[in-house]
Amino acid sequence: MRRNYKMHIMYDGTDFGGWQRQKNAVTIQGEIEKALGIITKNEISLIGASRTDAGVHAYDYVANVFLDTDKDNYSIWMGLNALLPEGIRVKSIEPCADEFHARYDAKHKTYVYNIDNSGYCDVFTNRYMWKYRYPLDYEKMKEAAGHFVGVHDFSAFMSQGGTAKTFTREIYSNDFEILGDKLKMTITGNGFLYNMVRIIAGTLVSVGRGDINPSDIPDIIESKERKRAGITAPPEGLILYKITY
Amino acid sequence: MRRNYKMHIMYDGTDFGGWQRQKNAVTIQGEIEKALGIITKNEISLIGASRTDAGVHAYDYVANVFLDTDKDNYSIWMGLNALLPEGIRVKSIEPCADEFHARYDAKHKTYVYNIDNSGYCDVFTNRYMWKYRYPLDYEKMKEAAGHFVGVHDFSAFMSQGGTAKTFTREIYSNDFEILGDKLKMTITGNGFLYNMVRIIAGTLVSVGRGDINPSDIPDIIESKERKRAGITAPPEGLILYKITY
Repeated sequence: MRRNYKMHIMYDGTDFGGWQRQKNAVTIQGEIEKALGIITKNEISLIGASRTDAGVHAYDYVANVFLDTDKDNYSIWMGLNALLPEGIRVKSIEPCADEFHARYDAKHKTYVYNIDNSGYCDVFTNRYMWKYRYPLDYEKMKEAAGHFVGVHDFSAFMSQGGTAKTFTREIYSNDFEILGDKLKMTITGNGFLYNMVRIIAGTLVSVGRGDINPSDIPDIIESKERKRAGITAPPEGLILYKITY
Repeated sequence: MRRNYKMHIMYDGTDFGGWQRQKNAVTIQGEIEKALGIITKNEISLIGASRTDAGVHAYDYVANVFLDTDKDNYSIWMGLNALLPEGIRVKSIEPCADEFHARYDAKHKTYVYNIDNSGYCDVFTNRYMWKYRYPLDYEKMKEAAGHFVGVHDFSAFMSQGGTAKTFTREIYSNDFEILGDKLKMTITGNGFLYNMVRIIAGTLVSVGRGDINPSDIPDIIESKERKRAGITAPPEGLILYKITY
């Protein structure tokens, strides 16, 4: 019987070429489609909530997929995790309404960006952190983070190469936590432009270094000039944390 | 100038043959001695607070070492982390009193034992968890954990092959946290017999499976019979968390 299934997925993106299926790279979508193809003996096309770049991680990614199979959910779930590489785990796979669409139905998304400022780098988390060893003013970074909240045209915080046609997004919250010598930014919005979270994280580091004042952030947003924002922080610190429907 | 240095070390034990220097295995002690040998051009002998088995991790290990060098602390620290494999990080290295001895001066130790009972296994923590997929009664495990606190002869919770000559130890606390489908045991005591923490963790899993009642734990301790306790839980779930001086 052909049915729509909703999947919750987690992955360590370090060894993958991002979410999207590609001919010449091992990707999350590609690996899951291959595994589901083996299980159902059909060609599979997964609908993911969002693209993620090479090296970016996901804690709770959502996808949907139409499967034509008599297998029960538990067997599909167990089979998938047995076939997938260890860095990709399916947390759950359950039948859902035919109308459910992982991308179109996403209401908002939460990303986490992690920075390890310890100077030696915690071995337990070093795959999921930007290792940044130079001194940073954490309090200024925290102040700057708050200025991103609201409805703004975020053109200044976008890399070339995205598919977006409109550039205004609403950021609901941007929390900046100081956990000893680790820094954690948690940002929630109704959508994000290409590399937007990584450019915001890079800009916070410019603030922490003293190159940008926290009070300059509204001006930089207003300017819509990419060159006034900070660098694009590296992918390893970024985790797609949650998608809300 | 020859001085004594105190080091705080963290390691992911997955790829190492334990703490102790060995001829035919890559070990934490061996790697650090090799790196310090390169930096100081001397033969180095590190005094570690405790042995840890192959595959066991440390969050805050303490060692001391006599070095004859003119290099400043910062250079030694940076040099060490540049030379060491990524899974071993020196958090700090500072001169200390000549009398300080990492092993003899240790007052008590705290270990963490982690279990992932999710059925799929969290990709962000899978190197530091016992992946145990069968159903467990968490509340019974929590109840059992409390019975280990106190002064006891722990012979029933010891593997053959240790060097201990006395078997009575004091456990100050044994906290059992239920974090969704992850379980975390944090145990602090004045000393631990060979494999003691792993056998206690294995026994809690026997309790969770219904094979041992929580109220049987005092009897099992009293019996001093290894065969009445549970299995030795695997090394990957164990972290030497803190050593108090």
